[in-house]
Amino acid sequence: MNTALDEVCAAIADPTRRAILERLMQGPARITDVAEPFDISLVAVSKHVRTLERAGLVRRHRQGREHRLVLDARPLRDVARWATRYERFWTQRLDRLEAFFNQKGKSS
Amino acid sequence: MNTALDEVCAAIADPTRRAILERLMQGPARITDVAEPFDISLVAVSKHVRTLERAGLVRRHRQGREHRLVLDARPLRDVARWATRYERFWTQRLDRLEAFFNQKGKSS
Repeated sequence: MNTALDEVCAAIADPTRRAILERLMQGPARITDVAEPFDISLVAVSKHVRTLERAGLVRRHRQGREHRLVLDARPLRDVARWATRYERFWTQRLDRLEAFFNQKGKSS
Repeated sequence: MNTALDEVCAAIADPTRRAILERLMQGPARITDVAEPFDISLVAVSKHVRTLERAGLVRRHRQGREHRLVLDARPLRDVARWATRYERFWTQRLDRLEAFFNQKGKSS
């Protein structure tokens, strides 16, 4: 089983963490910059950032006395690939489902 | 914020639940069929199925006295779309990161 995918999916299952990733799409940022739009404590934001770091989605780089957070979006490629395996069911499902139950209904 | 995406991502952050979805790609199945490959109790499997139902990934259809589980992969389209927004960072990140820090190193 893919434990990396477990951690990445759990990490992105939170709106604050997705918003942090969105902020980092604009470029590297300090944790105080990242925290600025949120009405939650810096401690709470730091905890979210650590979850993103553990999932491999954010890296922390030290520059002198400052830390910069940098997006690493590569694990999201695995998420997209996994979800896209279901692509043929995105549109077909309802038709298939109806066909299946109509057929079963006729045969019983 | 997209609470549906929260639930879908949390639902797929578990290997047993991803395996259940994979089983249902083959077609509708009874919960006992779905549980068969797993070395966990039927109760535990049922709990996973309920999580998938709440996320909109699985539907339960009654056929006489039987329940059939049916895949509904449409929420995975939202996951794929969300992750794909980061596509341009999947390959560029390391280059961008290095460029950023090299530039900063030179100017300080």
